[in-house]
Amino acid sequence: MMVDWTLYVITDRRVAGERSILDVVRAAIAGGASVIQLREKEATTREMIELGQALHEITRAAGIPLIVNDRVDVALAIDAEGVHVGQDDMPAAIARRLIGPDRILGVSARTVEEAVQAERDGADYLGVGDIYGTPTKPDAGEPIGVAGVAAITRAVSIPVVGIGGITPANAAAVIEAGAVGVAVISAVVGAADPEAAARQLRTIVEEVKKGRKS
Amino acid sequence: MMVDWTLYVITDRRVAGERSILDVVRAAIAGGASVIQLREKEATTREMIELGQALHEITRAAGIPLIVNDRVDVALAIDAEGVHVGQDDMPAAIARRLIGPDRILGVSARTVEEAVQAERDGADYLGVGDIYGTPTKPDAGEPIGVAGVAAITRAVSIPVVGIGGITPANAAAVIEAGAVGVAVISAVVGAADPEAAARQLRTIVEEVKKGRKS
Repeated sequence: MMVDWTLYVITDRRVAGERSILDVVRAAIAGGASVIQLREKEATTREMIELGQALHEITRAAGIPLIVNDRVDVALAIDAEGVHVGQDDMPAAIARRLIGPDRILGVSARTVEEAVQAERDGADYLGVGDIYGTPTKPDAGEPIGVAGVAAITRAVSIPVVGIGGITPANAAAVIEAGAVGVAVISAVVGAADPEAAARQLRTIVEEVKKGRKS
Repeated sequence: MMVDWTLYVITDRRVAGERSILDVVRAAIAGGASVIQLREKEATTREMIELGQALHEITRAAGIPLIVNDRVDVALAIDAEGVHVGQDDMPAAIARRLIGPDRILGVSARTVEEAVQAERDGADYLGVGDIYGTPTKPDAGEPIGVAGVAAITRAVSIPVVGIGGITPANAAAVIEAGAVGVAVISAVVGAADPEAAARQLRTIVEEVKKGRKS
């Protein structure tokens, strides 16, 4: 599956607040989100599956991939296009074995060492960060900055998506550092107008990529 | 796989307290535990896999099955003999599809309706309760008592293991109601001497079963 990594939006019901997370995702996709990740740390397995099935209908209709955070079982249950594992989740090599060769495997990396290991273990892409410091992952450690992104993109050949505190004000620098896209929770899911927020981020990323090619 | 359901011991690191959960499980098996379930609601996926791998070495050496609570992904990752799903976990029919026909599938049931549905969905056995009220599942609802166990064992043809507040003082009644074994956390994992506690429970269950046959 060819994936457009430009704007990778991660769900969080708590960040969506009173609004339906499904409505927020629909708006994000209308604004240009090109990948959706289901990430719900506080949900039961049953809730994740039900939410995942509903999200998958939306992403399928939009022709973009749905990736499940951490939970390989949920990804298999809802036949998601991929799974994303962090360093506290299932080891990437085991995840690759369980999901098979065709599903997308993403791995979180904050160091060159983790990134190189993840590529070796079968990752299709990396989520690299925390870049700027993020409110939704307070335990993520010191931000790695765009220098961290640049070091990792030089060390691996798979696509790198930047994550962690990305906003319209700092997104361009992430792409300039070598990432192919930006992953966000708060900047879109927590925005007053998720569609407009997604459109603004997408435009910024595309502008930098256009400049890179010319 | 033929399983002896007599004494089904469920892990909980918090109940084990200062002691190593692996030592507690070794002691429980020495005392006669015939099934071990890995159930760690507060652990990361990585921690569950590491603990599960260590437990699996112990249960394999003892020739008894290891069953993973809720997490089909962890069960597949560590090649456990089975998985147990509750009503908030993955639907039983999906779990059966993901684990294949040979692994053991257990389902929690507190009503005849849930029990019959679980058998239909491919359960190999049922965990029935909460029978007496349990401190480790404070959200389990009203205890169903041994009358609840009796009603379910009459309604299904798969083995029923009783669970919820079982102690040496009330275990016999669970078997007399038709269960083939008892599942415990606190009564063994929380006991001062887990081996002695397991031996005492096992003896009680075996005595009732012996009486039933004669």
